[in-house]
Amino acid sequence: MQDLGYYNGEYGPIDQMKVPMLDRALYFGDGVYEVTYTRNHRLFALDEHIDRFYNSAGLLQIKLPHTKEQMKKLLEEMVRKVDDDRLFVYWQASRGAGAREHTFPEQGEACILMMIRPGRLKDLGEKVGLITLPDTRFLHCNIKTINLIPSVMAAQRAKEAGCFEAVLHRDGRVTECAHSNVSILRDGVFVTAPTDHLILPGIARAHLIRACKGLGIPVDETPFTVDELMRADEVIVSSSSVLCLGADRIDGKPVGGRAAQLLAALQKTVLDEFERETR
Amino acid sequence: MQDLGYYNGEYGPIDQMKVPMLDRALYFGDGVYEVTYTRNHRLFALDEHIDRFYNSAGLLQIKLPHTKEQMKKLLEEMVRKVDDDRLFVYWQASRGAGAREHTFPEQGEACILMMIRPGRLKDLGEKVGLITLPDTRFLHCNIKTINLIPSVMAAQRAKEAGCFEAVLHRDGRVTECAHSNVSILRDGVFVTAPTDHLILPGIARAHLIRACKGLGIPVDETPFTVDELMRADEVIVSSSSVLCLGADRIDGKPVGGRAAQLLAALQKTVLDEFERETR
Repeated sequence: MQDLGYYNGEYGPIDQMKVPMLDRALYFGDGVYEVTYTRNHRLFALDEHIDRFYNSAGLLQIKLPHTKEQMKKLLEEMVRKVDDDRLFVYWQASRGAGAREHTFPEQGEACILMMIRPGRLKDLGEKVGLITLPDTRFLHCNIKTINLIPSVMAAQRAKEAGCFEAVLHRDGRVTECAHSNVSILRDGVFVTAPTDHLILPGIARAHLIRACKGLGIPVDETPFTVDELMRADEVIVSSSSVLCLGADRIDGKPVGGRAAQLLAALQKTVLDEFERETR
Repeated sequence: MQDLGYYNGEYGPIDQMKVPMLDRALYFGDGVYEVTYTRNHRLFALDEHIDRFYNSAGLLQIKLPHTKEQMKKLLEEMVRKVDDDRLFVYWQASRGAGAREHTFPEQGEACILMMIRPGRLKDLGEKVGLITLPDTRFLHCNIKTINLIPSVMAAQRAKEAGCFEAVLHRDGRVTECAHSNVSILRDGVFVTAPTDHLILPGIARAHLIRACKGLGIPVDETPFTVDELMRADEVIVSSSSVLCLGADRIDGKPVGGRAAQLLAALQKTVLDEFERETR
């Protein structure tokens, strides 16, 4: 198959798949999700994504119908049905299907949905532009939910500005980007916002922290400001789809480029890990 | 028909209706909605709901496929197909269908969905219990979006406490409830939060303000605190499904009940208006 959509046991080409109108994802955004990529049909960092998926669901009291092992097997099975070996793999769970009432449905398990399509990691050699925007999101950003309107709007603003991502900030404090984490290199230290309720505990971010430890780069998990971002030696955007990208401009002003070797070492480490794990 | 689901021109019983997996409502909650009720198959306050629907869509740059007049006719047409004359009428528009990318789809119009089912206004003679919870929602609460997880969670907490609604507050300031506005009567004055980005400009709330003007009750649109809520003469919950309900307890403590005649006059005014408009 060219791509694959999955819903509660049924699957087919994505654009032919349909879901019940009563799925709570459709009218409450009442669900959680994950994204990872494959190479050689192997899902990168699957255990970490599965753990976060179950954690997100648990925080919202969404009852998942499968064990972690079953869910992993299901993802692996669906990935094998798609021809391309480099894939974007998306899966979500909603709280179930039922009449539109805010309170939880009396019965019912989560509805599981997947969308798998060809997709490649971004070229890490590319430098990207960013914009800054106020962070107007809710206070549950640690949960990977499908309540994503503010991220959609911010991503669109970035695109219209010819940029890759929007850096969000609350009262001057940098939180994260619309669909990535953002960190900086400053005086040889990797500085990244702490994982509180204002940011997603990114898996690529965790891999970068591990990479820093391997490379002897100190890690400082304390909040930083937009001003510190603008003056950083390097600005790093990380997510499952970009791993570790350097930015060279923010709001049209040049940034970073003063710790190129450290950035390159980090990029090599996380890319090597991706390739090793998906061999 | 017993109930009716509608999606982009097709309709049928709600539980048999399906929607494309690629609808952005399903994986981004990227849409807006409205709810009203009917009597004698007449939609209450339809112009106001339509105006707010187009306003919500406009604020998110969602392009609606119909004019306001067409949308009204479509709703009226669908309502007539359902046997019961007292109906809950829900409609939403998502930003369209397409591959999962945060940025807006290049082409494509909004996807229109409706769910119409038997539903009655709540009995206004009943007194309800409330709980208080921190307001952790995003800063776009003036837009009626389907990013509703915090409302879902708050409504569930209220239900588990045996209560009708949860009053949300930011740093002590009362904003609104999970799916209603909340106002108070104090020393003969109707006090209600101003319509900024922290609350939905409720249509029932607007009708209450108009009712106050008719009854000679002064209206004060300034924020009030949880403490003021607890000490109010009456606590009033309003929405399209309850119009104007009095609360008699919050977090287990007795509240209100000290301006029963004013509350009854307001309830009579808005209920009379509902019945007159849906004759």
